Amino acid sequence: MSSTRREILGAAFLATQWTAAAPAPVRYVRFRRGAATAYGIVEGDTIREIRGDLFGAHQETGPRHKLADVKLLYPCEPSKVLAVGLNYRSHLGQQKPPSVPELFYKPITCLTHPEDPVVLPPEAKNVHYEGELVIVIGKRAKGLSPAEAREAIFGVTCGNDVSERDWQKSDLQWWRAKGADTFGPLGPVIVRGIDYGRLELETRLNGKTVQKQNTSDLLFDCPTIVSFASRFVTLMPGDVIYTGTPGTTGPMKPGDIVEVEISGIGTLRNRIAAA
Amino acid sequence: MSSTRREILGAAFLATQWTAAAPAPVRYVRFRRGAATAYGIVEGDTIREIRGDLFGAHQETGPRHKLADVKLLYPCEPSKVLAVGLNYRSHLGQQKPPSVPELFYKPITCLTHPEDPVVLPPEAKNVHYEGELVIVIGKRAKGLSPAEAREAIFGVTCGNDVSERDWQKSDLQWWRAKGADTFGPLGPVIVRGIDYGRLELETRLNGKTVQKQNTSDLLFDCPTIVSFASRFVTLMPGDVIYTGTPGTTGPMKPGDIVEVEISGIGTLRNRIAAA
Repeated sequence: MSSTRREILGAAFLATQWTAAAPAPVRYVRFRRGAATAYGIVEGDTIREIRGDLFGAHQETGPRHKLADVKLLYPCEPSKVLAVGLNYRSHLGQQKPPSVPELFYKPITCLTHPEDPVVLPPEAKNVHYEGELVIVIGKRAKGLSPAEAREAIFGVTCGNDVSERDWQKSDLQWWRAKGADTFGPLGPVIVRGIDYGRLELETRLNGKTVQKQNTSDLLFDCPTIVSFASRFVTLMPGDVIYTGTPGTTGPMKPGDIVEVEISGIGTLRNRIAAA
Repeated sequence: MSSTRREILGAAFLATQWTAAAPAPVRYVRFRRGAATAYGIVEGDTIREIRGDLFGAHQETGPRHKLADVKLLYPCEPSKVLAVGLNYRSHLGQQKPPSVPELFYKPITCLTHPEDPVVLPPEAKNVHYEGELVIVIGKRAKGLSPAEAREAIFGVTCGNDVSERDWQKSDLQWWRAKGADTFGPLGPVIVRGIDYGRLELETRLNGKTVQKQNTSDLLFDCPTIVSFASRFVTLMPGDVIYTGTPGTTGPMKPGDIVEVEISGIGTLRNRIAAA
């Protein structure tokens, strides 16, 4: 495995995320090999294939594949995608902190695999990155307390809530500003068993750091978001929630490389392409 | 079949919707019988079961069932649900007519079967009906012209875009105002082969007419909506688009019966229930 590949999968961070007292985090991916897709567990340079449903009955005893021999996909197949706005003080600008998590939907058609291009729609003029921690739901969740919500969180991954700022201002709702095809890069690794409330989030554009914040600065933390959402909308296993972006954001142009790196998880990397 | 049941299925309207020159509209439902669910074609008091995928390869040669022996379900299983706001002049109030279709998403978890209850969330105080014509997409659709979009429309059905007006005003986006569990009644019949640009839409609350408009008054008609959406977001077979509600709306309380009737399609009926 090249050092770049090792970095994408976050192996360099693992040692800092757990101690002898805590069980080791488990690192899940979804991958395609030839015509077949499967879930797997990353162990060093290999993937141990999972037989069955990651969020239900499954066996972790499938064949091993070299990481270099597979295409990593967005790491689960959600039935719906939620996202939170205005969830870091550094991103609020002149706006007041919200009194409740301010949620919205991204359509599942916007999900984009790691290393696949974010394609700028022909009419888009002002498309920004938004590096984010993303929650992966593990159990059907309705009306949960924050403590119960913690149990419903399967793990966390990296996401980029790509946003067209002009449409975000001009449209009644954010359906295309946040939901155009390819506007939802996600993955590649779901990590289960880390403290997702203390992770370093960093976004890089062409290698330059453009966002940097710790997830301890989230205004509404992961269990609070899941608990609040579940009071109104039933969450299903595999559903994902983008938790919000910190700081300021900027536009992207064809050829740019955008990376969202989260300590203990890894790096989500995508190229920007013209339509 | 009782007269009420016949009315729900719109049989009384059929004769006015087609002539000898046009092929007869086909009326599709999805239903549960015992533990099994299937699509079917309604013919009088019976359903002819469909084997396979309604939007792909299928055979219309399955067994027949009496309508009275099945539970009618929302009539397809969309991968996503879109909806249009501000699409009848009579619903605009003081707002300007939009220059493009103003879309948003409802989550698939809000879909509600005909005759099943709309359950008011415990914290909801101001839940309104919105009777609407709903488009059912038949083919994968990306970047379609309005003429191509017409070909991508499989058929139309009835919907109720249930809306909590207080949340709609107070929240940043409409995720729970329009997306709370049970806020998406849909069905029971998808009609293929009618002129969906000239249908009478009527909403009744406890039998009293509270909305009444012809779909010819839509600001953006069905092919225009599908064409515009498809410029940004890929639509998949079975996806649905609520096309907007006319006139004014009012609140509903537990025990109320709300009906959305569209000529040539039928009636969607739901009871309102407390949490």
